[in-house]
Amino acid sequence: MINKLVEKIQKTNAPIVVGLDPMLSYVPQHIQKAAFEEFGETPAGAAEAIFRFNKAIVDATCDLIPAVKPQIAMYEQFGVEGVKAFQRTVDYCHEKDLVVIGDVKRGDIGSTSSAYATGHLGSVQIGSKRFSTFSEDFATVNPYLGSDGIKPFVDVCKEEKKGIFILVKTSNPSSGEFQDRLIDGKPLYEHVGEKVAEWGSDCMGDSYSYVGAVVGATYPEQGKLLRQVMPKSFILVPGYGAQGGKGKDLVHFFNKDGLGAIINSSRGIIAAYKQDQYIDRGITAENFADASRMAVEDMIADIASALH
Amino acid sequence: MINKLVEKIQKTNAPIVVGLDPMLSYVPQHIQKAAFEEFGETPAGAAEAIFRFNKAIVDATCDLIPAVKPQIAMYEQFGVEGVKAFQRTVDYCHEKDLVVIGDVKRGDIGSTSSAYATGHLGSVQIGSKRFSTFSEDFATVNPYLGSDGIKPFVDVCKEEKKGIFILVKTSNPSSGEFQDRLIDGKPLYEHVGEKVAEWGSDCMGDSYSYVGAVVGATYPEQGKLLRQVMPKSFILVPGYGAQGGKGKDLVHFFNKDGLGAIINSSRGIIAAYKQDQYIDRGITAENFADASRMAVEDMIADIASALH
Repeated sequence: MINKLVEKIQKTNAPIVVGLDPMLSYVPQHIQKAAFEEFGETPAGAAEAIFRFNKAIVDATCDLIPAVKPQIAMYEQFGVEGVKAFQRTVDYCHEKDLVVIGDVKRGDIGSTSSAYATGHLGSVQIGSKRFSTFSEDFATVNPYLGSDGIKPFVDVCKEEKKGIFILVKTSNPSSGEFQDRLIDGKPLYEHVGEKVAEWGSDCMGDSYSYVGAVVGATYPEQGKLLRQVMPKSFILVPGYGAQGGKGKDLVHFFNKDGLGAIINSSRGIIAAYKQDQYIDRGITAENFADASRMAVEDMIADIASALH
Repeated sequence: MINKLVEKIQKTNAPIVVGLDPMLSYVPQHIQKAAFEEFGETPAGAAEAIFRFNKAIVDATCDLIPAVKPQIAMYEQFGVEGVKAFQRTVDYCHEKDLVVIGDVKRGDIGSTSSAYATGHLGSVQIGSKRFSTFSEDFATVNPYLGSDGIKPFVDVCKEEKKGIFILVKTSNPSSGEFQDRLIDGKPLYEHVGEKVAEWGSDCMGDSYSYVGAVVGATYPEQGKLLRQVMPKSFILVPGYGAQGGKGKDLVHFFNKDGLGAIINSSRGIIAAYKQDQYIDRGITAENFADASRMAVEDMIADIASALH
């Protein structure tokens, strides 16, 4: 799947991923209203509204982008119905041949991590049959529990040709509270980065490993260092746009081959229709998905100009 | 909810929690067969089988125990149908007045952590209405992202009188890879423990905080230290039984008031019917839930004898 991701990035010339993190407040009123009329002001109604919202954005952007990253928390808040909408979103994005990065930040130990890996990336044996359930292509994973938590994911990645992105240096203001603390003269995130390189070394695609890392756009210096620590790992970079990261901050997340990083934007794309710059270009809540397309085009141009 | 947990522990005289982590291989054949006949060898069939398995164990043990801890990974591996079985399990345990600790190990940043907290512990606004969805009483949370990841959970805990257990020192063999590394002369887990005490200090129940910690039974020395670092935090202790922890290892996880810790056993209770010691006492796969009751009684006795 890392090979497919690389190919799609090269084909679209867009090292970006659209974060499908639909807060209900992002969903235009007319979509909410229609869904509530059909399913009531219920979790099923909310789930239908966010799925319709996602679908319109995917339809408007899928030819421009290689990948999407649904954030499962935004679905889980609506319970089982929300999780169904997550599944529908994953399935719909696959219909559109997009690579799907499940932003699930799972991580546990042994058989429990195995179960997460099975559910999100692999397949499960039920009696005499085998089923893939959530079937994302990549999942994000938390490293706090050490190798025991990561290895079961790596095993499933090898079997299924899927991939993971391990949290190394996250984009939030307080990420340094633990991640920046010095251990033997190096910050914790660097130690985690070294383990990412090690875990990834025995499951390589053509040029990059199945095991990638998450490093926030808001920490460009750390990104530069980690790029060197994990030369064969793709870096998933959140924090662009709404969280403050800019194209010029991103240069050092990439390798000399122009690859090695994929930049996420969520709110900046899916809620672009609320921004003055797109309202000024004729966008209303009715044609919100057109604003998402414009925002994708602007993001691609911003990153391209920074890289060249 | 921390007050209810304390009351129930005192009433049952059992500082234990039954881990409802049903691997399909733990579910006796006759239950699998019946569920598959009705729903097919499908995720729905598997989900039905694990719910029936859980229900029998809950029915057989609920008068002896204060709490259960369903591990959501074991449900997520069956996709949406599995998540439905998780919800049914939570709801059924609430019918039996058990405290439900959702072992979900979630953790993200800002609005994303808020969404997880909303889904698992809180309630979500949908149009003019408000819904609680998964509605566990406690959730486990991963600290790697720092305060930004924890505070949204704490906020929901305050509003809803719910609680969290933050991963501090996990029970697995490789937990030391990052957690034991020394920072300013102290291991990372101790720094995390200090933050747990800090985060918990402004949301206190009668005698313990809404903010607890996870510390593995397999690390008794670390448990002893962390007990002192976080005097007002309940410690959820996995790793008893099948993972190797024994009653005598647990003494120092408790405070002098005999409270402050709750010991989890999963496989040792829910798959007790496979152990020779219970087979020798007349257990078969047909009366598997009786073995779970025996295992709960044995665990309570083991811990009581260690504490006195």
